[in-house]
Amino acid sequence: MKAEIIAVGTEILVGDIVNTNAQFLSERLFALGIDMYYQTVVGDNPDRLKEACRLAFSRADLVIFSGGLGPTDDDLTKETVAEYFDVPLLFHKEIVDEIKQYLNGRYPLSNEKQAYIPEGAAILHNDHGTAPGVILEKDGKIAVLLPGPPREIVPMFIDKVEPYLKKKSDFVMESKVLRLFGIGEAKVGETVSDLMDGSNPTVAPYAKDSEVILRISAKAESTAEAETLIAEAQRDIEARLGEYIYGYDDETMAKTTVALLIDKKLTVACAESCTAGRLTAALGDVPGVSSVLSESVVTYSNEAKMKYLGVSAETLAKHGAVSAETAEEMARGIQKTAGSDIGISVTGIAGPDGGTKEKPVGLVYVGVCYQDEVTVLKLQLHGNRDRVRHSAVMHGLNLIRKRVLA
Amino acid sequence: MKAEIIAVGTEILVGDIVNTNAQFLSERLFALGIDMYYQTVVGDNPDRLKEACRLAFSRADLVIFSGGLGPTDDDLTKETVAEYFDVPLLFHKEIVDEIKQYLNGRYPLSNEKQAYIPEGAAILHNDHGTAPGVILEKDGKIAVLLPGPPREIVPMFIDKVEPYLKKKSDFVMESKVLRLFGIGEAKVGETVSDLMDGSNPTVAPYAKDSEVILRISAKAESTAEAETLIAEAQRDIEARLGEYIYGYDDETMAKTTVALLIDKKLTVACAESCTAGRLTAALGDVPGVSSVLSESVVTYSNEAKMKYLGVSAETLAKHGAVSAETAEEMARGIQKTAGSDIGISVTGIAGPDGGTKEKPVGLVYVGVCYQDEVTVLKLQLHGNRDRVRHSAVMHGLNLIRKRVLA
Repeated sequence: MKAEIIAVGTEILVGDIVNTNAQFLSERLFALGIDMYYQTVVGDNPDRLKEACRLAFSRADLVIFSGGLGPTDDDLTKETVAEYFDVPLLFHKEIVDEIKQYLNGRYPLSNEKQAYIPEGAAILHNDHGTAPGVILEKDGKIAVLLPGPPREIVPMFIDKVEPYLKKKSDFVMESKVLRLFGIGEAKVGETVSDLMDGSNPTVAPYAKDSEVILRISAKAESTAEAETLIAEAQRDIEARLGEYIYGYDDETMAKTTVALLIDKKLTVACAESCTAGRLTAALGDVPGVSSVLSESVVTYSNEAKMKYLGVSAETLAKHGAVSAETAEEMARGIQKTAGSDIGISVTGIAGPDGGTKEKPVGLVYVGVCYQDEVTVLKLQLHGNRDRVRHSAVMHGLNLIRKRVLA
Repeated sequence: MKAEIIAVGTEILVGDIVNTNAQFLSERLFALGIDMYYQTVVGDNPDRLKEACRLAFSRADLVIFSGGLGPTDDDLTKETVAEYFDVPLLFHKEIVDEIKQYLNGRYPLSNEKQAYIPEGAAILHNDHGTAPGVILEKDGKIAVLLPGPPREIVPMFIDKVEPYLKKKSDFVMESKVLRLFGIGEAKVGETVSDLMDGSNPTVAPYAKDSEVILRISAKAESTAEAETLIAEAQRDIEARLGEYIYGYDDETMAKTTVALLIDKKLTVACAESCTAGRLTAALGDVPGVSSVLSESVVTYSNEAKMKYLGVSAETLAKHGAVSAETAEEMARGIQKTAGSDIGISVTGIAGPDGGTKEKPVGLVYVGVCYQDEVTVLKLQLHGNRDRVRHSAVMHGLNLIRKRVLA
């Protein structure tokens, strides 16, 4: 099966948004073993959209459209594709009810157009917005229409489109993602370069934020067969890079860390300066975290560091707020104040201002107090304010993990 | 002048990287007033690249290629475009010297191919890599070939391609973004539908996270003329939707709120339950925030709400942690504890678990204590845990803004 992606939206053509949907869909289609040779972006213009539609179906069997399912007049994907397939749009009362429910009873008249679906199409219910998705199949051609917002298209594709596509395929494609932290993409590439030359399974590393993702993909006639191929490559990679692998598939650093804390019944509390709540928020992203996290403090000012954490004025005066000594007292302080098993602290210079020759932007100390012993990491992080704070959070979570597993 | 972008690279088609170059180029071309109706992504395959090239030039005068100028065998953009334009590739000794200089004397033989340039083309020197860019003009068609890595293409386009394109353009394009919160895309579309029908200026709304973006764009012979067209439309929109407009262009809700606090010299402190640090982190994303934010607390448990904020056991027992009463005491409590001008609290049920019939997932209370008066918002938010927490943060920031401006 050959596929193409058509992203619809003038906001992409004028550069207002990055077309991350295309990357998401490409990654998933590749994992399904579906070939793709072209991707297109077209604006909210019916003639050009129709032309793009015609061209894509002349080259592919499956065309996935993202965007243009909204309630406004310039949302035309459904109308245009229905016209191209020469099928009428039919009104669905149940969609109106779903929209009303989603909008707590409100029902702007313009949403009405979202209740019209091409005749004979499968309706994909949208749990995260008002626009239903559509799968339209005719004369061996398949059009999948999905909403533009990432929070809507991602769950809809994974939950509703992938199961449909898997049924269509005559072989299975399985893949496994290994997530590494504390090592660069180049080094990972060198270490597994021999495996990267293989064709089945394929092994592909890429850098993502401050981690490295290694994807193993195998094609076979049965899931069991594919999984065996993957398992062999996985064992091989784990033997070479095990110490850097923190999780698999969708296990983020936060998920892995929280799962470990829940499993070991260990509570944690954070004292954050430069990350200003991002570390706690990362833990808080994980459902069920409240059983191991009950409190945290953000202490930007020295006064707050003394008030909440009992950091000594002497330490702050002698070593400064950004120092190993302050990080240690912050970690001990929050562990004591919160009465938690683990106390973690982050203090640093996120920038863009505040850097000096001795303490440049990107200098961050992370401290973990566990079993009355404090480990402090000194980090020199790169990139802008956002990147520095994100990396600091990742290092913090990883340090908790390492200490607990030690 | 009509333009198209062709991004070349199999790594994009398999989803290993996001095509941020397209967004960068789109934004810059739009600002130059150059129309673009299509964008294409094609893999490292000469036949398909040539076909994409043929198609793009059948629709546009200017085609900008990103990627495929590297030293490896699968880098074929220059070769393919030269073939399409039917011009030979000529060897340039000076490029070899530049590559040697860039690689500190090293000169892998594979780089030799980068020294070949289509006859008659302008060479764009690359300060950040080994691949020179190319501008090839023939029979009224212009091909601009640029390297793929963002750190190479961005400076090359800005420093070398934009001055060239500006000479070609005979008008200017200006645009203004209005950012709205507290109203849906559908309602905005209905309210300005008459303006959306106009062709100059154009008015286009789209939903982004929990806000709505309205872009006004105008084309004219002078910047002043374009700005006048925009100002008129802007006044008209502000008269209709002013109460929902919180910022312009790249002013995010957090930036707008922090700027307001800094301007009014008002300090803020947060008491977060369900957002668990995200509200403080959002404020913390803005450089310079430390002058108005010195501390915050995350109080997941009832104990923490009592300990840090003095929320009464009675209130928690009688109304529960997720209630207007608790939100009010939390806001008063953090304002008092921190001695800040403003205290803000968030308590709610982010889900997926913890919801009841009386208090469903998505129920969130946001409280702001300012000048000894507390305003509490009761919200029923949609979507998954992440979405609920994000919306809660946006509502919290907006409430601070509204209270301070009231």
